Amino acid sequence: MKPALPRPLITLLTDFGTRDAYVASMKGVILSLNPQAVLVDLSHDIPPQDVRAGALVLAGAAPYFPPGAIHLAVVDPGVGGPRRALVAHCRGHFWVGPDNGLFHLILRQASPLTIISLENPVYFRPQISATFHGRDIFAPVAAHLSLGVDLNRLGPGLTDPVPLDWPEPSFGPGTLRGEIIYVDQFGNLVSNVSYGELAAWRGNQAIELQVGPVTIQGLARTYSDVAPGEFLALVGSHGFIEIACAMDNAARRLNAGVGLPVEIRQV
Amino acid sequence: MKPALPRPLITLLTDFGTRDAYVASMKGVILSLNPQAVLVDLSHDIPPQDVRAGALVLAGAAPYFPPGAIHLAVVDPGVGGPRRALVAHCRGHFWVGPDNGLFHLILRQASPLTIISLENPVYFRPQISATFHGRDIFAPVAAHLSLGVDLNRLGPGLTDPVPLDWPEPSFGPGTLRGEIIYVDQFGNLVSNVSYGELAAWRGNQAIELQVGPVTIQGLARTYSDVAPGEFLALVGSHGFIEIACAMDNAARRLNAGVGLPVEIRQV
Amino acid sequence: MKPALPRPLITLLTDFGTRDAYVASMKGVILSLNPQAVLVDLSHDIPPQDVRAGALVLAGAAPYFPPGAIHLAVVDPGVGGPRRALVAHCRGHFWVGPDNGLFHLILRQASPLTIISLENPVYFRPQISATFHGRDIFAPVAAHLSLGVDLNRLGPGLTDPVPLDWPEPSFGPGTLRGEIIYVDQFGNLVSNVSYGELAAWRGNQAIELQVGPVTIQGLARTYSDVAPGEFLALVGSHGFIEIACAMDNAARRLNAGVGLPVEIRQV
Repeated sequence: MKPALPRPLITLLTDFGTRDAYVASMKGVILSLNPQAVLVDLSHDIPPQDVRAGALVLAGAAPYFPPGAIHLAVVDPGVGGPRRALVAHCRGHFWVGPDNGLFHLILRQASPLTIISLENPVYFRPQISATFHGRDIFAPVAAHLSLGVDLNRLGPGLTDPVPLDWPEPSFGPGTLRGEIIYVDQFGNLVSNVSYGELAAWRGNQAIELQVGPVTIQGLARTYSDVAPGEFLALVGSHGFIEIACAMDNAARRLNAGVGLPVEIRQV
Repeated sequence: MKPALPRPLITLLTDFGTRDAYVASMKGVILSLNPQAVLVDLSHDIPPQDVRAGALVLAGAAPYFPPGAIHLAVVDPGVGGPRRALVAHCRGHFWVGPDNGLFHLILRQASPLTIISLENPVYFRPQISATFHGRDIFAPVAAHLSLGVDLNRLGPGLTDPVPLDWPEPSFGPGTLRGEIIYVDQFGNLVSNVSYGELAAWRGNQAIELQVGPVTIQGLARTYSDVAPGEFLALVGSHGFIEIACAMDNAARRLNAGVGLPVEIRQV
Repeated sequence: MKPALPRPLITLLTDFGTRDAYVASMKGVILSLNPQAVLVDLSHDIPPQDVRAGALVLAGAAPYFPPGAIHLAVVDPGVGGPRRALVAHCRGHFWVGPDNGLFHLILRQASPLTIISLENPVYFRPQISATFHGRDIFAPVAAHLSLGVDLNRLGPGLTDPVPLDWPEPSFGPGTLRGEIIYVDQFGNLVSNVSYGELAAWRGNQAIELQVGPVTIQGLARTYSDVAPGEFLALVGSHGFIEIACAMDNAARRLNAGVGLPVEIRQV
């Protein structure tokens, strides 16, 4: 055991919603093991069992937290089955949850990176429900991490984390094809095209975007660059290209959702 | 007054939702009286005025919190009327809220158990709104408890707390009849049959469950025991028998809700 | 810099919802700058871009917090455009957000009152997104306030804050005309008629209220003053006259929302 951190920070992300007892019971388990832990909700409204949406929200919020933060994330359709449980240490943070791709966007380019398969029941609750590893495995492991437990006590190393089912955009000559991977609360359509990828592909070329029947010229800087009701494309808070509708809900206006193709053309 | 606790924990459960100012004003009142209090939300999305759902979520989450935790719960259709207000001390925790059955599942088998009728206005806000005892009575009482006030200063003893309107299952020879008492966020159907009661009744006998048109053989251990789209029964996180649909929403699939009969047969 | 406060309190109000990464990334920014900050959510479910609803919820909750509290509020349809950003100091609290009327109900009668235009990028994040000043400007400013930064370092004084688009009731002889300005989670209809204004206007005169087809005699003290399903008027938690329906949802029963006229007659 390393000395306990002062006021250690644990964030929580789940698809449990906040209506039922599930999230609160995880918090109770953590605070029973470490009353000094500071708990911050990332989100509990990930669409049920949508690992990809969970991965995106996690990658969008977690990096803003201070060094040493422990991120507990549970979107876990395979709970009770053969999927592994993991803790990773990279980017100055700790990541605890199921090995199902939920941490893919965090781990994929991280270096140095340590991943441990959670196998030591000493750090779990004494009784493990087959349906609620959030409470019985991941919450107590996060609490023990906040108390300074050494990673190597938690289990053996894991070198092949399960990747995320994540569609990669295709970069053709003059045309880039991506798709919508997330719709946020405002109805903004988040694509799988990152700003960095787009910038490298387009160089100095002007672009237009095609989303369903809508054609958009270039990237806007902000929502007020166009008139209310007009569509625009911009770099969203996650670092991906987003399609929005000024003062309106783009998803509703286009009757669109996850999977909608986005075509970007050099013009 | 006893000495104040270090970092005392107060949980909050209401049916107020989180959109309006209600929950936050309760938190402001608590933190104004005790800036050291640590606040944790149990749930604020209890269906409006549904005392039974509040009781179930409270009993499902609160026991996981550490000794000394103070649970402030307000689902209070009778606010401003003749219903009493109470604080109870049992199971190592404190319980503050209306005397309307909300704490029934906690108090019914607790021993030792102290219950006080909240009648001393010294520990309330100076002005009591007739519609918002959560802010004006229960929040300040919880804050004073976190500062170490002696229970006996809060009012006289109360020995006949109002019971919850809670349907008990009927245990016949070979057939157990229960009903659905709660539908969680995933659409899982929580019955009023506890695992302990079922185990005592069935002994070593195999069982099947009938829920609407669906017949389920025995209890599953986890959601992945059956194929996606199939129904299963298992012991849920609350300790009651639940009906679920693997990778789907059982309530929606069965168009079912609270009150649906559940029949369990020895086979 | 003044000495940092012990356990400084920062509340957050936005229209971002809690599903996406937005609120959590603001919290991460704050905690990275001041790990001692205590964060409390006021509400994140303000209807999108509804500055008036945000102003009302803020004014309904924030005053209950202890002296020194920092209120970070972001309902910001003009983000990235020419609207100014401000911090105000009044009523013993600090207020940080866009200068668009969101703080109008707090500032309008405050004295003494200091308002600063946020213009010193030293206290912002190094890169300012054009669409997310909540994370890049308001969150770091709130964190620096919690560390004790002097207001005058943040920018020049601002003396003409943008007022809120707020309908004032009209007080005629014998008839007062107001309107519904907010519908809470229970379907209670909050009017723009404050209790103080009503009391001054009516004197000792009996009153009746007309809301759509419903006529209500006088003010009730509490929901249980009338039979379930009956309409009543009372002084709500915000200090404004509200129309409610006992054990039911008044907005749904009347198919009514923001803008519905309320007529109060002396009888």
